[in-house]
Amino acid sequence: MSDPLIIAGKTYNSRLIVGTGKYASYQQNADAARAAGAEIVTVALRRVNLSDPGKEILTDFVKPDEFTYLPNTAGCYTADEAVRTLRLAREAGGWNLVKLEVLADQKTLYPNMPETLTAAKALIADGFEVMVYCSDDPVYAKMLEEAGCCAIMPLGSLIGSGLGIMNPVNIRLIVEQTRVPVIVDAGVGTPSDAAMAMELGCDGVLMNTAIAAAKDPILMASAMKHAVIAGREGYLAGRMPKKMYADPSSPLAGLI
Amino acid sequence: MSDPLIIAGKTYNSRLIVGTGKYASYQQNADAARAAGAEIVTVALRRVNLSDPGKEILTDFVKPDEFTYLPNTAGCYTADEAVRTLRLAREAGGWNLVKLEVLADQKTLYPNMPETLTAAKALIADGFEVMVYCSDDPVYAKMLEEAGCCAIMPLGSLIGSGLGIMNPVNIRLIVEQTRVPVIVDAGVGTPSDAAMAMELGCDGVLMNTAIAAAKDPILMASAMKHAVIAGREGYLAGRMPKKMYADPSSPLAGLI
Amino acid sequence: MSDPLIIAGKTYNSRLIVGTGKYASYQQNADAARAAGAEIVTVALRRVNLSDPGKEILTDFVKPDEFTYLPNTAGCYTADEAVRTLRLAREAGGWNLVKLEVLADQKTLYPNMPETLTAAKALIADGFEVMVYCSDDPVYAKMLEEAGCCAIMPLGSLIGSGLGIMNPVNIRLIVEQTRVPVIVDAGVGTPSDAAMAMELGCDGVLMNTAIAAAKDPILMASAMKHAVIAGREGYLAGRMPKKMYADPSSPLAGLI
Amino acid sequence: MSDPLIIAGKTYNSRLIVGTGKYASYQQNADAARAAGAEIVTVALRRVNLSDPGKEILTDFVKPDEFTYLPNTAGCYTADEAVRTLRLAREAGGWNLVKLEVLADQKTLYPNMPETLTAAKALIADGFEVMVYCSDDPVYAKMLEEAGCCAIMPLGSLIGSGLGIMNPVNIRLIVEQTRVPVIVDAGVGTPSDAAMAMELGCDGVLMNTAIAAAKDPILMASAMKHAVIAGREGYLAGRMPKKMYADPSSPLAGLI
Repeated sequence: MSDPLIIAGKTYNSRLIVGTGKYASYQQNADAARAAGAEIVTVALRRVNLSDPGKEILTDFVKPDEFTYLPNTAGCYTADEAVRTLRLAREAGGWNLVKLEVLADQKTLYPNMPETLTAAKALIADGFEVMVYCSDDPVYAKMLEEAGCCAIMPLGSLIGSGLGIMNPVNIRLIVEQTRVPVIVDAGVGTPSDAAMAMELGCDGVLMNTAIAAAKDPILMASAMKHAVIAGREGYLAGRMPKKMYADPSSPLAGLI
Repeated sequence: MSDPLIIAGKTYNSRLIVGTGKYASYQQNADAARAAGAEIVTVALRRVNLSDPGKEILTDFVKPDEFTYLPNTAGCYTADEAVRTLRLAREAGGWNLVKLEVLADQKTLYPNMPETLTAAKALIADGFEVMVYCSDDPVYAKMLEEAGCCAIMPLGSLIGSGLGIMNPVNIRLIVEQTRVPVIVDAGVGTPSDAAMAMELGCDGVLMNTAIAAAKDPILMASAMKHAVIAGREGYLAGRMPKKMYADPSSPLAGLI
Repeated sequence: MSDPLIIAGKTYNSRLIVGTGKYASYQQNADAARAAGAEIVTVALRRVNLSDPGKEILTDFVKPDEFTYLPNTAGCYTADEAVRTLRLAREAGGWNLVKLEVLADQKTLYPNMPETLTAAKALIADGFEVMVYCSDDPVYAKMLEEAGCCAIMPLGSLIGSGLGIMNPVNIRLIVEQTRVPVIVDAGVGTPSDAAMAMELGCDGVLMNTAIAAAKDPILMASAMKHAVIAGREGYLAGRMPKKMYADPSSPLAGLI
Repeated sequence: MSDPLIIAGKTYNSRLIVGTGKYASYQQNADAARAAGAEIVTVALRRVNLSDPGKEILTDFVKPDEFTYLPNTAGCYTADEAVRTLRLAREAGGWNLVKLEVLADQKTLYPNMPETLTAAKALIADGFEVMVYCSDDPVYAKMLEEAGCCAIMPLGSLIGSGLGIMNPVNIRLIVEQTRVPVIVDAGVGTPSDAAMAMELGCDGVLMNTAIAAAKDPILMASAMKHAVIAGREGYLAGRMPKKMYADPSSPLAGLI
């Protein structure tokens, strides 16, 4: 079954985007990204160490010719800061497809939505293709879509919390109204969380901690690959109706 | 990774057992079983039509040399009835590995646990390998294990309801105490339900309606195959801890 | 509104039964029972200290002329033990209305259902009015009702766990089929848990730890009194239907 | 126990605010408000019929000397419209304490948060005391508090949906950070929902449909009164810890 994910005109076969934080090593990170079947990896632009040539660098392991790099603005707390960061990154690396996040505070790492919208508009006017981390408020998700974002990335729950999809109603409402890809970003903790996000009709899932902080990140990456496929196929296949009472499976089946 | 499921001394690579009821046709049933990657199919022994040679028969499609047939006693409401049914089946078809279910009533299709235990003891004494459909009561699950059942099959929720795992605490308690395989039987409605069962540490999942009553049973079968793998690998990989507040993924990652 | 709870022919105005374990003192226990508006208190018969006349005794505080004493068999692990304990209690104190619990093991404190049914039958034959702690299996609940128990007391979750009602479907099924009072026993942790039990149609709630282990047991007892009333009235009042989309409250209201 | 709710300097004993929509009659509305023990009722200012002197009017039944009227801007879709509506209302009726809601669309009735914040600032500058209906985004809730709103009123779920508190984590985060009263507005369907909102530490609950659309609105109003008290007392009393395994209540209690 051909069921590609198309973001900003480019086609991907994987619906699982992975991060590049919290891994024990770049090697482990690369192995996990491969086990996840990921085609896109997201990378924080802040605190980039360009100065120490003796240190290992991510790109030697998670190779840009193997994965699409999706630079993100994690750690930016204002629209200005995010826009400036991405402009610098474009000059340095040529990245045009970016993940915008403008955070509100360190306790929640929730997005500051007005700053996010401001930054999105500025970046889009500047020619960027903007995938945008946002709250699960369908109203703001619509504004971001109307501003021209190429993917809406609502949070499932707190970044790094592993609490799963707190509000499936909001995710459903966002999916129903959105014509660009909807990718749950933040909160997924388990394969069943990832499957649930996809069963709600999301087009993809982005995760970092669920893989990086598992006891065996490589195996969890594989688990998540299967979970995203499972949820996607389950969504397309159309689930059985729920029932209040039992309904026999077997009586009509004949053995021989 | 080699991670076989061993039931009654025989090794399986798939942890998903599928049913043979409610499908539009035997052909669809066979296609779904293959898409699910199933090695075992369960078949109801009651109301077996042996008499009409002109009608299609299941075994022409879901072939016994391709799948392990697991005869079940769906539709039996007493220990006697279940035991008698399985003895006849063994004489006819040689099946020794069986799935025992003794139902209490048509509204819930819940097991009658005392009758189930009585039947299990009789069958085990008679040389059967008994996989047993049971309530999610860990106390009774222990009695069935001590009686010699080769797999404990607690219900997730009502048969055919698609309500998922109603009581994960009970499934967890059963998993913790049981040394033979624990296979959730009944209630799974979605891939995420199946993944969740496996994440609780179950050794497998049996389902019928979730696949057969999906809009596209073949695609749902594939979804469930991936979901069971996802949940199994997720369990083995060890999930990240849940957190009450946010935890940043990205700040430590360097881009270049 | 007159809405009494009738157990074994006797009428009660309160639907909240409280325990007598884990309190800091008998005085606190009595104060909590009063704050809860309880008319029935349950008391464990095992390890009764009859021998030390210098020690405080429960009945000086939680007075038998103020509360109906409901002796229970907590700590009994066989039918024999439970029956013997209750016979002794009846000889000593004249109690005929009893709460039967036959436990399976110390880790779960779940009931041993076959032993419970055996004990119930013996006690009923012996003239006792038996309220019975049981699993949430509707099939066994029916057997206990048919055996003549005067109240069915399914567990919401593990005793002392505060996990709430794990399986509302099973509680609903028990409520629908049962003609004697159904009283959730074990698992309630919060007022909302207690309200939920009552909203499912239960006739009452029994709790101990949720009150005794609260930071302020007296205030929690009052909270639970209100919660049980809230849930009962909510059940009788008939809840609004759930909706998938918004439905305006206000537009039709005129101000002046 | 004295535990008043103070909003904009005024003290209330009830923590339950009720609406004035969807009732069968103004008489029923008034009876429900009394059964709820409400001191504040909220009334939509839009579509106010001032012109037909022959028709019954709300104030003849839900009397302004018996209840504090809280005018709301339900049906307003822009900041301008909401501000204008409230200014007219102040001129006409003298209301200074108001409930601001600026809606985004009819399908969700979710707030348009940027318009809401704009309106809140304008109204506060204009001397209004603004209680504000908002999303459950803690970041925006903080902005509204910093703008000077006198109560933060996050939605539990869709208006009129009865789905309860979809995201308890967000409500908890809002409660933890907010120094003015937090009042859940929208979504409550059952007494247990209301209790849960209060157990999260909210200062009050506003509801309309849960009462008005119950089969017996007067009885449901009473249920909700008890539920809010239950949840409040439960919050103050401090819940027992949750446990993974059983913990016996009874063994230490002595009978006589």
